[in-house]
Amino acid sequence: MKKITILVLALSLASGLLAQNQSVPYPDGYKEYKHIKTLIIKPEHSQADIFAGIHHIYANDKAYEGYKSGSFEDGSIVVLDYLKYEDANHTIYETSRNYVAVMYKDEKKYKDTKGWGYEAFAGDSKDKRLVNDVNKMCFNCHLPQEKSGYIFSKLRE
Amino acid sequence: MKKITILVLALSLASGLLAQNQSVPYPDGYKEYKHIKTLIIKPEHSQADIFAGIHHIYANDKAYEGYKSGSFEDGSIVVLDYLKYEDANHTIYETSRNYVAVMYKDEKKYKDTKGWGYEAFAGDSKDKRLVNDVNKMCFNCHLPQEKSGYIFSKLRE
Repeated sequence: MKKITILVLALSLASGLLAQNQSVPYPDGYKEYKHIKTLIIKPEHSQADIFAGIHHIYANDKAYEGYKSGSFEDGSIVVLDYLKYEDANHTIYETSRNYVAVMYKDEKKYKDTKGWGYEAFAGDSKDKRLVNDVNKMCFNCHLPQEKSGYIFSKLRE
Repeated sequence: MKKITILVLALSLASGLLAQNQSVPYPDGYKEYKHIKTLIIKPEHSQADIFAGIHHIYANDKAYEGYKSGSFEDGSIVVLDYLKYEDANHTIYETSRNYVAVMYKDEKKYKDTKGWGYEAFAGDSKDKRLVNDVNKMCFNCHLPQEKSGYIFSKLRE
């Protein structure tokens, strides 16, 4: 019985985590959100295998208010539009898309990850989901950013 | 009399050009406009002395519609937020501002420059204007872009 209980708990947990991820919607129209900032990670960076490229950060109106106030209300959406780039003719310009990563605020639904749901969508796909371990792939790195609402980026001046 | 007439005409023209520039307002709140694209010009570029840095292009709602339709109506505003950058720790990130360049659409007011007024504001200033020769500094380069409404940038996918 004990083994079965553990199995049931494990399955229930796995299913819960899956459901949590699946519930983060693709952020339609995010390129019309507010642009927060842009940075570029170069191929020599220690985390280049997952982050080399152009990073555009966007926020919907609720999240934009959160950047200003420091407190993100439910419905806030922050998007990382993560693109490849070419460095040619002394110009760096964006090319194809690596993925679109999303943080979606819902205190109740995502209480296990401090109120934010995390997902990433491969390339230009709206349904090819990449996050299969939200703690390892997203939450653990965001956790230390508690003072800024678990968000890394800041509004630029 | 002939010399005086020419002088009067010249002064009138100069004053007209000055008035035209002065009438392009600082684009308050442009960082809340739609983000069109970003590119980076490196210090080795042939036009690095005036363009090396991060170029963020923003459009107000009217201009954003223009990017989609190909036709920019009066009141369209396109902004180039032109920033310095640091390249350190295999990361390129923006630092201080070079200038904010503005294109402001008014077919009647700016008929001499195909309907667009041009201006640039130094650093973080809202009144330190940089354009003292609109043809040489702005219009001549934009003129060949007639097919895209005299705008260089395109909406990204």
